[in-house]
Amino acid sequence: MSFESLWADQSAIGRDPETGGYTRGGWTPTEREATHWFLNQCATRGLSVESDGIGNLIAWWEPEPGTSVGSAVSSIQGGEPAGGPAPRPGVVTGSHLDSVIDGGAFDGPLGVVSALAAVDRLRAEGFEPSVPIGVGAFVEEEGSRFGMPCLGSRVAAGVLSAEKALALTDRTGIPLAVALEQSGIDPAGVGPSPLIGQMGTFVELHVEQGRGLTAPVGVASSIWPHGRYRFTFTGEANHAGTTLMEDRHDPMLTYAMTALAANKQARLAGARATFGRVSVEPNGTNAVPSQVTAWLDARAADTATLELLLAAITRQAVERAERDGTTLEVTPESVSPIVNFPTGLRDRLVGVLDGAPVLPTGAGHDAGVFSDAGIPTAMLFVRNPTGISHSPAEYAEQDDCLAGVEALAAVLKDLAK
Amino acid sequence: MSFESLWADQSAIGRDPETGGYTRGGWTPTEREATHWFLNQCATRGLSVESDGIGNLIAWWEPEPGTSVGSAVSSIQGGEPAGGPAPRPGVVTGSHLDSVIDGGAFDGPLGVVSALAAVDRLRAEGFEPSVPIGVGAFVEEEGSRFGMPCLGSRVAAGVLSAEKALALTDRTGIPLAVALEQSGIDPAGVGPSPLIGQMGTFVELHVEQGRGLTAPVGVASSIWPHGRYRFTFTGEANHAGTTLMEDRHDPMLTYAMTALAANKQARLAGARATFGRVSVEPNGTNAVPSQVTAWLDARAADTATLELLLAAITRQAVERAERDGTTLEVTPESVSPIVNFPTGLRDRLVGVLDGAPVLPTGAGHDAGVFSDAGIPTAMLFVRNPTGISHSPAEYAEQDDCLAGVEALAAVLKDLAK
Repeated sequence: MSFESLWADQSAIGRDPETGGYTRGGWTPTEREATHWFLNQCATRGLSVESDGIGNLIAWWEPEPGTSVGSAVSSIQGGEPAGGPAPRPGVVTGSHLDSVIDGGAFDGPLGVVSALAAVDRLRAEGFEPSVPIGVGAFVEEEGSRFGMPCLGSRVAAGVLSAEKALALTDRTGIPLAVALEQSGIDPAGVGPSPLIGQMGTFVELHVEQGRGLTAPVGVASSIWPHGRYRFTFTGEANHAGTTLMEDRHDPMLTYAMTALAANKQARLAGARATFGRVSVEPNGTNAVPSQVTAWLDARAADTATLELLLAAITRQAVERAERDGTTLEVTPESVSPIVNFPTGLRDRLVGVLDGAPVLPTGAGHDAGVFSDAGIPTAMLFVRNPTGISHSPAEYAEQDDCLAGVEALAAVLKDLAK
Repeated sequence: MSFESLWADQSAIGRDPETGGYTRGGWTPTEREATHWFLNQCATRGLSVESDGIGNLIAWWEPEPGTSVGSAVSSIQGGEPAGGPAPRPGVVTGSHLDSVIDGGAFDGPLGVVSALAAVDRLRAEGFEPSVPIGVGAFVEEEGSRFGMPCLGSRVAAGVLSAEKALALTDRTGIPLAVALEQSGIDPAGVGPSPLIGQMGTFVELHVEQGRGLTAPVGVASSIWPHGRYRFTFTGEANHAGTTLMEDRHDPMLTYAMTALAANKQARLAGARATFGRVSVEPNGTNAVPSQVTAWLDARAADTATLELLLAAITRQAVERAERDGTTLEVTPESVSPIVNFPTGLRDRLVGVLDGAPVLPTGAGHDAGVFSDAGIPTAMLFVRNPTGISHSPAEYAEQDDCLAGVEALAAVLKDLAK
């Protein structure tokens, strides 16, 4: 099946007819529909799908038995128990099918669809892998439903405990355990995943999310350190009509100044700082709010810059809180250090791709989690002409997507030969 | 029944055990419970309750037939049809039982409970009114559910059409018609109310909502002009990690600057401006928002000042939008001109109350709607020691509340003698 048909099929699922965007939170109906589409595609290709306790999926293209040197080697390396061959670590590619709220078509699905298309291409060429090639779809990468980015891969890799994961609730108060049950997944299985041991190498293809890539395809050097911090501004609810301006303790003002300060400090630091999510109590037109909660997303090229950025924003916020008679609490919800992808694997990809450009990214990915978990990991980026991402306007040219499939196929062929 | 018992009874209904506040939007279970309590109290007192098409209530204490000069006079004045006496306009007091989200105990219910207590007091004294005395409870005064303050009184007075009222929806998308049906009220009856013609005079007792009253009880001079304006800031959704700060069109920044500008301009004008309600799209931590909608509540001592205030805030917002590459749309949702209560009635109350202080208020009330509809209207305020209102911390001393009941009883006695 051609990339174009696969893409058209997949991108029809759950598209909002008004905005043109996608809202595929983990284990929601639209995300499930995309997942079922993926499972059907795997079945059509005769790929055997393995699922772990939280719902991460890898569909395996197994080498022909006995024909492959590589498989014998990895089997021996793994130690062969009496009952049969030990699992041979494979070359896994793929990405995620969930999205941010009203996100674009490419972030996630492009990596999954390109993986299927690359498998089709290699098979059409008659390529015979010596180790298993896996196509992965990892759940709730965006964290748009449960607030924890890379939820599936973090749990799989054991960096987020089952206990902490199952304590998460979505915005409507539904606990992760209930969401899993509603999708037919037993929450008792949530925990470190046997899939991790089967991932000898991981390569994630992803649409670039800035304007940093001018060639059709590039290779990742690193993922910027990234923090999500909850800022809770507390004041005093009051009547919007009768309370003198000077008698107020209005947390909205403290928040507003903090949002402007974050923008300014990020510009000064050559970094990124965003307040994109806000919750107001009681959120009535005629009431001075009692509380404003806002989430800061901050990223920088290195950890020291990120820490200085957070400190500068917090300092300005605290100063303003003193003027407003409000209080501020800053709670880190997730802080990810820099991910430097291994240079050996990266250079191998650059070699296969005839000197493709190398660039860092400010976006987090499951690839970062797997890399931190010790799996040799690389990323391929497909050019984004506008740099727009996490928006219905997110876009990549079809020719660049086809170049991405070709590059991924070449890389898989090299790694699984 | 004593004021204290009535107050304890009523204020137990729907109190949030965590915040100590009340969330009694119109036709919600807690508001209905308070309304049922009111109906029971009226039944206990033998008051005959009339309800109109949207659910406003007046409970009547009718004069003894034939014993009153006043009733005969008003019957003659009204013209007496062959079938019996025409309705005699009464002296109505009362307020509302709904609240803002997580509001206080006093705003609304104090006027209803004090009205019942004043009736009890007058009856215990053996007072015989010459015109009917009505105790009113008017629905959705705060507009906290359907976004339209004084919804019940506006519809009753015919200043808001049934068509426009029935087109309102609450935040969960429930139309007013459905909310009415769920409360056993037929939406077909919504429209100008026959109760209006029965209100010869209206006196609303209310807790003061600022710190403007230093005596236990005061009399209102006017209600400030008041506008609610929806500010829609539109930008471009994007990825919070990968989009350069200088490539963004972030409506959150335009909003933040506007919220600070509103505060500053209101201080300069000696007025009030509040952004207490905000809605963000898509409201994800890792997405630059595509749109921020925020509601400005603005009030000033006169219309010219209010208009200048809105113009100044809008000008600063538009300037910032140009810098941010965003756009701004300002939609007035409701603009109420100044209400000057009739001085004759006001002076009569001041006389009855031995020179009680006279003061304006920045808060809207059903009394303003009834006054604009041509009903001679006055307001009594009970001191608020902290000035806090629309908050669980809203408070009035019990002695001041008792002074309020005494004052209201004296006023009713004078008006219905």
